[in-house]
Formats: sequence, structure tokens, C-alpha cells
Amino acid sequence: MTDHHTPDRADVVVVGAGMAGLTCANVLLGRGADVLVLEARDHVGGRTRTVEAGGESVDLGGQFIGPGQDRAYALAAELGIEVFATYNAGDHLMETAAGRVRPWRGTVPRLSVPETLDLAQAMARFERLARTIDPSSPWTGSGAAGLDGQTLGGWLRRTLWTTGGRELFTAASRLLWACEPGELSLLHALFYARAAGGLRAVMATEGGAQQDRLDGGAGEMARRLAARLGDRVRLATPVRAITRDASHVVVTTGSGRSVRAGQVVVAIPPTLAGRIHYDPPLPAARDRLTQRLPMGGAIKCVLVYGGPFWRAAGFSGQALSLRGPVDGVADSSPRSGGRGVLVAVMHRPAPQEAVLNQLTRLFGAEAARPLAAVRHDWSADPFSRGGYAALFPPYTWTRYGPAVREPVGRIHWAGSETATRWYGYIDGAIRSGEAAAEAVL
Amino acid sequence: MTDHHTPDRADVVVVGAGMAGLTCANVLLGRGADVLVLEARDHVGGRTRTVEAGGESVDLGGQFIGPGQDRAYALAAELGIEVFATYNAGDHLMETAAGRVRPWRGTVPRLSVPETLDLAQAMARFERLARTIDPSSPWTGSGAAGLDGQTLGGWLRRTLWTTGGRELFTAASRLLWACEPGELSLLHALFYARAAGGLRAVMATEGGAQQDRLDGGAGEMARRLAARLGDRVRLATPVRAITRDASHVVVTTGSGRSVRAGQVVVAIPPTLAGRIHYDPPLPAARDRLTQRLPMGGAIKCVLVYGGPFWRAAGFSGQALSLRGPVDGVADSSPRSGGRGVLVAVMHRPAPQEAVLNQLTRLFGAEAARPLAAVRHDWSADPFSRGGYAALFPPYTWTRYGPAVREPVGRIHWAGSETATRWYGYIDGAIRSGEAAAEAVL
Repeated sequence: MTDHHTPDRADVVVVGAGMAGLTCANVLLGRGADVLVLEARDHVGGRTRTVEAGGESVDLGGQFIGPGQDRAYALAAELGIEVFATYNAGDHLMETAAGRVRPWRGTVPRLSVPETLDLAQAMARFERLARTIDPSSPWTGSGAAGLDGQTLGGWLRRTLWTTGGRELFTAASRLLWACEPGELSLLHALFYARAAGGLRAVMATEGGAQQDRLDGGAGEMARRLAARLGDRVRLATPVRAITRDASHVVVTTGSGRSVRAGQVVVAIPPTLAGRIHYDPPLPAARDRLTQRLPMGGAIKCVLVYGGPFWRAAGFSGQALSLRGPVDGVADSSPRSGGRGVLVAVMHRPAPQEAVLNQLTRLFGAEAARPLAAVRHDWSADPFSRGGYAALFPPYTWTRYGPAVREPVGRIHWAGSETATRWYGYIDGAIRSGEAAAEAVL
Repeated sequence: MTDHHTPDRADVVVVGAGMAGLTCANVLLGRGADVLVLEARDHVGGRTRTVEAGGESVDLGGQFIGPGQDRAYALAAELGIEVFATYNAGDHLMETAAGRVRPWRGTVPRLSVPETLDLAQAMARFERLARTIDPSSPWTGSGAAGLDGQTLGGWLRRTLWTTGGRELFTAASRLLWACEPGELSLLHALFYARAAGGLRAVMATEGGAQQDRLDGGAGEMARRLAARLGDRVRLATPVRAITRDASHVVVTTGSGRSVRAGQVVVAIPPTLAGRIHYDPPLPAARDRLTQRLPMGGAIKCVLVYGGPFWRAAGFSGQALSLRGPVDGVADSSPRSGGRGVLVAVMHRPAPQEAVLNQLTRLFGAEAARPLAAVRHDWSADPFSRGGYAALFPPYTWTRYGPAVREPVGRIHWAGSETATRWYGYIDGAIRSGEAAAEAVL
């Protein structure tokens, strides 16, 4: 349903039909609230997005779930979506900055002995520091200001003394956050890992955040959640303004229609939430935060092949590159077998030819000739403006962080960036939607 | 004139009646263009703002001009506004982090011999690095990525080896940029100084950026520029949307009125420019930039006294504090004599009592009892959302910088943040308005 039939009243308006907004709306509906979800796009799912390519359902957005993401597993089960293991057999590949390709297995690529020791001590220090963070309030704690006053990049330069170790940590950072490690505060990186249970949890496939996938694509979750809401979800209905007084809010859409509600849950990325026109204006504390929460620059390229040819050659399809433009690759083939699918992620734009050249360097000549190829630059998408998630630059958590979840009158905030567990993940989005629903109720 | 009488056509629409927009519009008018300036506020001036307090005209925003700011001096002369020297006689004061107050003279407070040597070597290194920057393209140059990958705060920690030297540079940074030095990229600090002719130029009163003031207040410039434009300036007319095609743009205001024009100049801070709804959406390169250009947190407190009592006590009225909450103070008394006015600047909110306590520590008991006091938190102002200017965090100039001035079809960008000389100053705003007018023509 689009804007033309939007009702003019609801108990709660939810802005955004991503995983946070849809979860929130379903909880509210289950408690008897009259809820209305307004979505700018012509489809639901937010930063999850499943499309057809080469006859297969492929994921252009968030797609993995793993141990500890209890809410994501529970929701998948509740929605009748089967979970299956990410392909993880054979050799992973690492491409050095100089372009050498080396096989490895496990969570961390093999390096020389000094490099391995160096990486191990840095990861141990990182994990130790991460354990000092309270993920529900990373701005507290005696060490917070010091950790927030430096970038992850600066810390890597000081902490790792081998080139190989430093390069590897840098490559992993680019893959994890879709940015240069110099763009984030060390505190944010620590918080992010802490909210996920540790650095190994976010980096690993088996036993980590990339362990499992969703049959039919991650977008299936949003589709089924939206189906339960029926015409309570309105597509192609961007929200432009939110006016509030002591007793209600009025949400105005792009076509000038208004919906009057008791409360509103804004479940979109903070940088986009900051672009809505608020009357009265939001407090300085909230605006100062949203001014400084840029999104990561994730671009996902999906390549569909006749089959997963890399498996026969003994490769897992997983790769990490220090050379780029692609930062990381994974096997994203459908559960059913048949087609082979690779997903390549980069944090800054590069031509498709460079992507295919790199996949050819890694997996051989067959990689150059996909049956189908789709890509999504999340920064160019006007309704996400980046991915995977918002990045906290230095001094943002400690000086402006509390505003990330603090409601402003009848306005509540949701989205993976407001989660205290699994920030930036599908699971975090679900948790944030549940938390917002509780706050509203 | 307000929105009700807004015409529906113009050659050029200028968004924002700050110094950049008004300068641009006047140049265009002088060349025969039919120009219309749309201003969200009920007054002109942008980040300059002169109000009445205690019977005097006092400045709550940008207020100083100095050598090298040729366009600002020329404009003042052209508008018939007299320029006079900032009061600079007597002792300046420095308050240490521990709360000790010490007098000093000249540009840089006196420290112990090792601290003085330390500060001198750091300033020399800073100036040397700044000279490597091309202010028209700070992202170029072999060293740019390295300088942009670190924060000014990190560089200060590594470069200064005495506590006193480091504290002083930190205090000066807070005063200059209204933020913690850890919030900015080193490259941005270097660019900023370079665009102004050097670090001493931005720090100094006599011979530097605080040398002179404008009779009647800095707001007089905008008022007189606006008077020349007459009803071509529309107040209380916020712009919400800009639609464009190959032949024209349509600018839509908060009340839903539309103006069709050949071109549009958006002369507001980048973080606010990013909140306008653009159709078609802006390219990713531009949006990625505006997502990461937060404004400084300047709060100006103006205190009006019966007279400039500090002068008789041998004080200049200028102070720098490492203790806070006020980072810096200056004598802002009217040219005419009579009342005494102090302006206190801080980079984060603090109660007025704390401000008055600090002024009392510095200048004695009389400071506790102003006749009148006004303050402006620029972050709480919905039409600036901070001050003095946008801050570039690490990796922003080198990864996203070129989009700061690059037009998008018929949309041009102006404002002090687009200036290649005197970025963040009134003079930079004037230059940016002139440059935008040339680009439009």
C-alpha cells in the first residue's frame, strides 16, 4: 500500500520498515496497539535486501547470523525460515598488499612467526580493553575518554610492530566496518566487539558472526514480518517532518499527508533520522550526535556462476585482501546447490572490471565470467546512505553518545545503532526494535 | 518580507542569508541577474549576529577581522562600516588546568623555559607542515593521507613532551575550533591555519585574526548587504527540497511554495545542506561528505558591565583557560567607550554561574555582577547547529574533500566551509559567496 491510503491516525507511527521498525511494529501489534509503519522505499528490509540474479535469490545487504545472536535465530525460527551453515571448508585466501596470494585456515590468516606473535599480542590487548567496556554505556568507565580520544588506526600503528600484523588487522578492520581504521574511535571498535562478545566472534565464520545464513535470503525475514502487518506497512512513503506537543505527534510524509499519533519510533540510521524536520527542533545534544555519525561505505558485489567452482579447487571462497579494491569475499551460494555465488565487499567505489580482476587473481580464470552480477553501493542509496552501520569518530561516544537512545518527548529511536548487543548486526536491529516497543508501551 | 509574497521564478535562488549568501546575491544582482535569497531565520547574518544587551550592540557570533582578510575589509569599507582595533593593552591572563592564574603579553602565554622551548618546536613543526598544504585542495600532496589519518590531539600528544606546552596548545585548539583537538584531523588543523596564513595569524590579536572589530557589530555587514537586496531577501522561509532536471531547479519552502530557477546556490553549513531533500538524490560522494562534517560547539556568552573595569586593573580582558568551562575571553566593549563588554567562548555547555565564577577568578569580584548577559549556543540554533564552522574528522578531507565545492548540476555550494582562504571566518564566507556567483555566471 502506498501513501494514497495512509490513515490519519494511529497509536504509534514507526518510521522505517527495516528489521528494527518491523520488529517493533510486530511487538506493538501483538500488544494490541494500532500501529502504522511508514517506509520510504518501495520494499521492506532496510539494510537487508534479497534480489533475484541469475535465477537465484542473492543478498545485497546484511546476510549472516551467528552464535549469540539469539534474537535473530529466534525470529527466524518463529517465521519458519531455515538456517544453514555458511560454506567454510577448504582453504581461505589472503592477498597481501604486494599482491601475493596465500592460503590459510581458521579465523586468522597464517603469518610469519614474529607477525603471528605480534598479531596475537595486539588481539589479546584489544580483547582485554574491550572487556572494560559496558556496551550499554560505552561512555562510562575511567578509561573511556582516553580510548575515545584516539582512532583505531592510531592504536594499530602504536600497538603492532610488524608490517604484516598491522596490515592484517587493518584489512580486517576495513572488512568489519567498511571504512579506514583511522575513521573510527578506538572506543567504538572496542564497544562494537564487546557488544558482539569479542573480536573473534565478529571475525569468525564457524563459531562467529558469519556462521549461518538464512534460506531464501535474509530479506525473507522482513518480508514475512511485513506480511503479518499487512496494510499497516505503507511503502514509498518517506517521512519529512515530525511535529510534537505534550499530547501527540504529527508525522508528515513526502506527499504532504499527516498522521497523528501518540508516539513515534524513528527506526532509520541516525544520519537520516537527523534529516527529518522536527518541530520543535531537537535538543542540541541529539543534533550534535547525528551530525557526527557517518555510515560505513559498504558496497556489495554479488557474482553468480554456473557452480561453486572454487570448492573443487579446494578453496572455501573466503578471502581477505590487503590490496583491494575488494576487502573480503565469501561463498554466498544458495543452500540448494546448483549455482555458485560469491559476495565481494569493498569500502570504496571501484569499477566492476577491477572486482573481477581481483576475483580472478584469487580464484582463477573462471571468476572472470559470472552468469550474472549485481551490486549495491549503500552510500548511493538515499534511504540508507551507507552501510553496514554508523561509525563513531573520535570523541563521539564520550561527548555525545548518551543521545543515541534517549527519547525526545514522544519520539523514540530504534535501529541497529541503538542496540547494546550486536550493534550493526541484524540481531542488534531486532533487539533495538523490541526495546523501542517496550519503551513505547 | 516573508514567504507569503515569494515570487515563483528567479534566475538564481540563494539558500541562506548569511555573509556568503548575501555576498553572492549582491554580486549576481550587480551583474543583472534576477536573484532571490531564501532565509530560514527571521533575520539575516547567519553565523554573525548582533543584538542589543544592556543598551549596547553586542556580537553573539563571528565578530573579528584581521590582516589578510582583504575581502572583509573591502566590504566593510564599501558598506561604510568603520573598523576599530580590538582592545589589546595590558596583561592577558592564563588559567592553568590546576586553576592558577598567570599574566602574559604577546601572542603566546609565558611558560617555564622547557615548556617554552617545547611549545616553540611544536609550533614550528606545525607551521612547517601547514606550508606543505595547498589550501585549494588539501587532499592532494604526498603527505596528505598521513596527516589526515591522525587527529590533532594525537599529534599534540606525540609532538609535545611537556605537560604545560601540551596543555597550552590544547587550550588554544579548543578556542580556535570549539572542540577537543581529538575531534579533528591534523590535516584539517593544518589546512585551516594555512588558509589563514599561519598559526600565529589565527591566534594573534594585533597582526592576527582578532585584530579588528566592526563598529556597530559584525551583524551590520549583513544588514546593509540585505538592504541593497530589498525584497529579494525572504525571511522565515526555510528551504526543504530542491528538485532539478537538465534545464532548471525547483526550490520548495517550508510552507510548500515553489520557486523555479535556472540555478541555486546553497549557502548554509554542510551539515544543514545535507538535510535538504534533493530529487534526484545527491551523488554518494557528496552525501558521504556532509554525513561527516559536524559543526564546532561554540557557545558565546556576552557580559555587559558598567564599564571596562579590568582595564584600570591593568588587564586586557583577554584570557585563555585550561580549566574551563570558558576556553577564552576577550574585551568586546563598544568603540564609543561607556559600557564594558566581555565575550566568553566555550565549546560545551555550562551553567551561567560557572561562567561568572570563572570570570571572577580571572578579573575579580566585579565580573560577577554584569548589568546584562546574553548567550547563544550555536548547536541549539536549528539554522546553524553549531559554530564557528564545520570540523573535518580524520580521513574526511582526503577521502571525501573534493565534494565540498563541486557543483551538482545546477546546484552550487557556498559558505565559509567552501572557502580556500580564511575557512571558517567572515572573510572566507565573503570569498565563497563571490566564488559561487562567478561559478553561476
